[in-house]
Amino acid sequence: MKSETRKEEIIKTAAKLFKEKGYSAVTMRDIATAMGIKAASLYNHISSKQEILKDIIISLAEAFTEGMQQIKSSHISTIQKVQAVIKLHVDITAKNTYGMASLNNDWMHLEDERGYYLALRNGYEADFRSIIDEGMRRNEICNGNVEIIIFSILSTLRSLYLWIPKKEDVSPQELSDNLSSILISGINK
Amino acid sequence: MKSETRKEEIIKTAAKLFKEKGYSAVTMRDIATAMGIKAASLYNHISSKQEILKDIIISLAEAFTEGMQQIKSSHISTIQKVQAVIKLHVDITAKNTYGMASLNNDWMHLEDERGYYLALRNGYEADFRSIIDEGMRRNEICNGNVEIIIFSILSTLRSLYLWIPKKEDVSPQELSDNLSSILISGINK
Repeated sequence: MKSETRKEEIIKTAAKLFKEKGYSAVTMRDIATAMGIKAASLYNHISSKQEILKDIIISLAEAFTEGMQQIKSSHISTIQKVQAVIKLHVDITAKNTYGMASLNNDWMHLEDERGYYLALRNGYEADFRSIIDEGMRRNEICNGNVEIIIFSILSTLRSLYLWIPKKEDVSPQELSDNLSSILISGINK
Repeated sequence: MKSETRKEEIIKTAAKLFKEKGYSAVTMRDIATAMGIKAASLYNHISSKQEILKDIIISLAEAFTEGMQQIKSSHISTIQKVQAVIKLHVDITAKNTYGMASLNNDWMHLEDERGYYLALRNGYEADFRSIIDEGMRRNEICNGNVEIIIFSILSTLRSLYLWIPKKEDVSPQELSDNLSSILISGINK
């Protein structure tokens, strides 16, 4: 249990350093120094920088996949599903902006888990596409180019990790509500 | 004139390499090799990798600033101004996706011109903010959190360089029209 907590601390510290300097430029020694411990002590908790990256990215990607699958299979309207997807992104990102920066900037540095990460990401996008497709078929949302809709909504949600740290006065609830309104109803009067 | 064309070719080749390998990893030798010329010949046209980066980023940033200023001062409705901003991003990005990748990923590697770039970027955002503010005052667009609206629209527009190369079957006109519809009117029926 104590060891688990230490491991989480290592992962948090590493995510912050990856964001500041880029994954490639960070060494295990840098992580140890930032924590005020010896590099050798790190290896009691974690085997490599790659294991840290995997822990950061895969746990986030799995949280998104699990959230999306719940939303997709729930018996609510398409608009409610899109609102729930927005809330999922805001909530996960608000809790872990450094980890989300790593997911966005460093996923290509994954070694063994890269294929698994891409499969999760593709599955996530396919689930979101099927929600939008179904909404159009059921006449619950406007007809339009599905790919452009998905790009537009996901590019905003995937940029949240850059925006949230600069606007700490906006609560996750306020952000979810405002984004839902803008992404679903637009800005038109 | 011939020299100018060669310089443009160098800049294009460099932008592609920066996208593929990251600015820091690319050498002047890599650029020469990709062009099938000797590294020494590069220096007849350009003094350094930094000069290339500056040429790529500043010319794009100035094009955005000029476009935004024209839109801001034109006598059209707020919705038409937002449509024009969307078209500005689609048109500039469609013409130069590699350059836009560099602007997004490599601006922090600018040396002397970094402050100038950031001033252009901040001015651009301030102009867009004033368009949205004015639209709310004039009751031409919905009241809402201005910062969240700006974040939402700009994060989509700034991600276009990732999306456009994957969707070459969508024309810039079709993309502008669809994005305008989604960003301005949302997806709600």
